[in-house]
Amino acid sequence: MTALEKIKNIQQKNHSLLCVGLDSDLSKIPKHFGNNIKSLLDFNKEIIDCTKDIACAYKINFAFYEQYGAEGFQILKETFEYIPADIFTIADAKRGDIGNTSGAYAKSVFEYFNADSITVNPYMGEDSVAPFLEFEDKMVFLLTLTSNSGSTDLQRIASNGKPFYRFVIDISRIWSTHDKLGYVFGATHPDELKEIREIIPKHCLLIPGIGSQGGSIVDTISANSGGPAIINVSRDIIYASTDKNFAEVVRKRAEFYRNSFNQVG
Amino acid sequence: MTALEKIKNIQQKNHSLLCVGLDSDLSKIPKHFGNNIKSLLDFNKEIIDCTKDIACAYKINFAFYEQYGAEGFQILKETFEYIPADIFTIADAKRGDIGNTSGAYAKSVFEYFNADSITVNPYMGEDSVAPFLEFEDKMVFLLTLTSNSGSTDLQRIASNGKPFYRFVIDISRIWSTHDKLGYVFGATHPDELKEIREIIPKHCLLIPGIGSQGGSIVDTISANSGGPAIINVSRDIIYASTDKNFAEVVRKRAEFYRNSFNQVG
Repeated sequence: MTALEKIKNIQQKNHSLLCVGLDSDLSKIPKHFGNNIKSLLDFNKEIIDCTKDIACAYKINFAFYEQYGAEGFQILKETFEYIPADIFTIADAKRGDIGNTSGAYAKSVFEYFNADSITVNPYMGEDSVAPFLEFEDKMVFLLTLTSNSGSTDLQRIASNGKPFYRFVIDISRIWSTHDKLGYVFGATHPDELKEIREIIPKHCLLIPGIGSQGGSIVDTISANSGGPAIINVSRDIIYASTDKNFAEVVRKRAEFYRNSFNQVG
Repeated sequence: MTALEKIKNIQQKNHSLLCVGLDSDLSKIPKHFGNNIKSLLDFNKEIIDCTKDIACAYKINFAFYEQYGAEGFQILKETFEYIPADIFTIADAKRGDIGNTSGAYAKSVFEYFNADSITVNPYMGEDSVAPFLEFEDKMVFLLTLTSNSGSTDLQRIASNGKPFYRFVIDISRIWSTHDKLGYVFGATHPDELKEIREIIPKHCLLIPGIGSQGGSIVDTISANSGGPAIINVSRDIIYASTDKNFAEVVRKRAEFYRNSFNQVG
């Protein structure tokens, strides 16, 4: 089963484009989980338990675990292990380096953590991405136009009228096929999203920027034009409540997003 | 003491621009170290012991440790701890993400690992780099024109005749001062190195690409025009021998590079 097939299967089963982002932070999780690194794992498990029939994917942000060093890496591994096998997993690690180094990062993410996919920074070019694409049944999401304010600093610099992020797409799309190569595209740029959908209608897009970052659901779904997509919401779901009954609130918030994405579509 | 002062002090003390890259890989280290993850730490310690009066810095490539997961992260930490306090350390991690995520990466590298500096991918713009620059006495090395073949894919795309990597420099140099902002520039592009030295004569450059990657020592030193620089050699030093007396061979190889850099200068 290719990575894209795995995505389509779970999206059909759970009627969902929603990815829940596990940007778990000790300073923000409900107090009753306690305040040690193991608390992060307990929190993640409860988030997964209360959303696993609503989400199609979990995106795990490596930074939030790496800040706790080796113990954080262990929590990261146990979080991946806890996710049901049919749900798609995204290692949001934004890696990318010269070939032999990217090969080692690919082993880390695809073998040690057994993630289904990884986010990769395209800046260093083809040989920095190729080692990730060598793994069967895994997917690489290359950064294009990201959701943050800094996306205007470099990604929109234009050569002969074509912005840099479009070069990323045009150059990279021949590096592999759409069943294992996807793109990260921020929900905060719906007009540009619509444009790139005409160029790459079949590639899966990982779309962050809804929720805390302010991207519009209606504009995003409409601009995506029905192409394969995973829409991520992190903070606005996992920190929906800090009460004892937070799991109920989190579940309702996840349902709200899942249903909103479906209604517009 | 600023990061740049720390670099200058150790370069003066050891008469050296040489950085030794600890891209340590179990499949390549001498057999007598054994074949478990702890072997990597023993190997690193011996490399450090036999080069610490010759090198000005150690660059530690995170990928090679991350492929072993939590245990690898532990070896990474113990390697950082083993490096003498006056030698400059570079976390070669090529991180970069939206603001709150980069903040967590910065905590990982600057607090947990206590590295003096980090390599950062500039693609996501200012808010993805700023959290790293908030740390006092630490340095950020932004990627510009990298040493690998893929550097031609995107980094050289030109807008009005100016290549993209030059935009990275022009836009980012106002984000901080040269005592905490440096750049990665590949030794495989000496003509371009000479050009950018006219724009940023005072910024420290981290220069990989000498040794296994084929960059020329004479061309690099000449193009650098005497600016602050740390020149990295990884595989060609640490894998100089697999015999029992490998430390002697490694030391001689490191001396060769150190002296070559000084002779041209």
